[in-house]
This record gives sequence, structure tokens and C-alpha cells, in this order.
Amino acid sequence: MPEALNETDLERALARLPEWRLEDGALRRDLRFADFVGAFAFLTRVALLAERLGHHPEITNVYREVTLRLRTHDAGGRVSQRDVDFAAAVDETLAGG
Amino acid sequence: MPEALNETDLERALARLPEWRLEDGALRRDLRFADFVGAFAFLTRVALLAERLGHHPEITNVYREVTLRLRTHDAGGRVSQRDVDFAAAVDETLAGG
Amino acid sequence: MPEALNETDLERALARLPEWRLEDGALRRDLRFADFVGAFAFLTRVALLAERLGHHPEITNVYREVTLRLRTHDAGGRVSQRDVDFAAAVDETLAGG
Amino acid sequence: MPEALNETDLERALARLPEWRLEDGALRRDLRFADFVGAFAFLTRVALLAERLGHHPEITNVYREVTLRLRTHDAGGRVSQRDVDFAAAVDETLAGG
Repeated sequence: MPEALNETDLERALARLPEWRLEDGALRRDLRFADFVGAFAFLTRVALLAERLGHHPEITNVYREVTLRLRTHDAGGRVSQRDVDFAAAVDETLAGG
Repeated sequence: MPEALNETDLERALARLPEWRLEDGALRRDLRFADFVGAFAFLTRVALLAERLGHHPEITNVYREVTLRLRTHDAGGRVSQRDVDFAAAVDETLAGG
Repeated sequence: MPEALNETDLERALARLPEWRLEDGALRRDLRFADFVGAFAFLTRVALLAERLGHHPEITNVYREVTLRLRTHDAGGRVSQRDVDFAAAVDETLAGG
Repeated sequence: MPEALNETDLERALARLPEWRLEDGALRRDLRFADFVGAFAFLTRVALLAERLGHHPEITNVYREVTLRLRTHDAGGRVSQRDVDFAAAVDETLAGG
């Protein structure tokens, strides 16, 4: 059962995820792409990652803008290590190509 | 330039789109699928439809739940005939294949 | 390390997968959809399944036609239990919706 | 009705598409990505492009390898200007991000 991170561990995790911030108990990252095609190709990467990791983000998309929110249902809707790992995997996907 | 529908035309359109409702000036439909794979396969259909029609919805996805919101930026963020056509195409996609 | 199925196990597996046939040492299924959107939405399901199962098919797509071929590289390019499981998961995805 | 390009126009087009070659009457490009996720995200871009342009490639995918083949059914299965435009759009998608 995944547990919510305590405040110290959460601060440490956020220090390594400069593109993410804490909002309403979840990790949030906003992204803007060149166009809708770029945005949806990114969402496809996120979806494939989600199935591999067995963990799913909240997704919002309006044309070329995407917002991801990460929280763990089984940890009371708060941030667990699974969210931190997912955020790091998203960042790696964007860096890598 | 697409125009916002007047109240009469909007009511007529909504009568033919029973799964959609008006909320904050946009057409909204909520959908639930068997799992994330079903939800994301549907979003892929919506994305392909959007590129074909040159009109893009606002998308929210949390695991197997999807919300679509339709409004027309060039019509002051209100509902135009393009949104009504898009909603009908989404309904057809779900019915058909 | 996955092993190639022996002839008896392969025949038993094929008996439970009537839509698949053996061709050049691989499991093959041909599918036809209503249009390209249907075909690509199906491929998205297959891709998500592949990441979840850690096993990837050979994909061919021409407009509304899709061919999947399954073989296991680590089993000498022949059919292993992983291919049989993947084929069953594809069939289930098509049945389920 | 799209027409097959004559030999001169085809040579000129190929000179501007160095990643593509002519094979069995079709334009062909082979691509290799970092992994399956990269390959399928690219295919999603291609699919969205195809719906926008109303023209669809032949797609082959094995793990991180993708082959695209372009030909025009209405031009006798040979290369028309639509294929040249599609090839250029694919190249632009890869360059752009």
C-alpha cells in the first residue's frame, strides 16, 4: 500500500522536480507544445508510461496546452513515491525524445 | 468567422444531443469507460476527429473517466455550429465503431 | 527466458485462438475496421497493452486494415506463451470495448 | 483526381526528400526511435497528420523501428504530389518537435 510522503521527503522530491509544484495536495506540471499534434503525441507517451508503471495521471488538454496532476488514490489522494517516480519519468520522456 | 448560436438554435441543437448539456457557456459530455485503455482509445478517436474537422475540444481524463467541453474561441468562447457538429461526430464515433 | 512452445502446446493454443493462424513461425491476425480512425484507435489499445505486458507485436496498417504478428525474439523468433497471452488479450480488448 | 508524377517531377521531388527513396513505385522512409514509446508517439503524429491531410500512409512497426510507404491509390498506386506533400509534412514533424 503506497503511503503519502511526509513533508521532509516531499520537499526533497520537489527540489529534484523543478518543473512541478504542489497544488491542492497533488503534483502539477503545465506544458505548452507547438500545436495540438505535439500536445497529443506527448499525451500518448504519458499514456504508454502510465500503463507500464500502473499509475495514471489526471490529464487536462486544451489545444496545445497540457496539465498533468499526480496524486495517489490509495494514499488518501496525496503524493506518494509513485507520483514522484511518475513525474521523473515524464521529465525524462520530454528530455529524451 | 463562426458565430455563437442564438438561444433558439442552441435549444434545438441540444434537443438532438441528449448526452450533452450546457455548462458555463460550453457543451459538456461526461463519459466512463471500462478502464484507462478504453478511455485513451476514445481520446485518440477524438483527437483524430479534431484534426480532420480543424476544431479541438477541451479534454479532461482521470483514469477511466473523460469529460469533453466544446466552445468556439472565435465566437467569444460560446457555442457555435462547429461545436454542435463536433458533438454529433463524437456521438457517431461512439455508436459506430 | 521464454521458450518456444512445442507442437502440441501450440496446437492447443491455436484451438483457443480461432482468429489467429500460424505463418512463418509467428501468430498472425488480420483485422478490418470501419475506417482509419477505427484502425488507429485499435492500434492505440494494442500499444497500451504492449507496454503493460512488456511484449510488442509486429504491426502493419494500411488505411482500415491492420495485421498483427506475434513472435518472441528471445525464443528464436518463434511462438512462446507470451505471444499466446498477448493474442488472447487482443481478442479480449476487441470483445470488451 | 491526383495523377502520378512523371519521371522528371519525381526526381525533383526526391532531391528535396533525402530521407526517402523510391521502392516498388512508392516513397519509403525507415525510422528508428529510442524505444517503442518513441516509435508509437511518432505514429500518433503521423495518424493525426493523415486525418488532417486526408491521405494515409502504409505503416509497419516492429518495436522501435517504423517504416512508412506512400503511394496514391487513385493514381494507380504510384506516387502523386499528395505523397510528396505528405513526406515533407512527416519530415517537418520530426524536425519540429
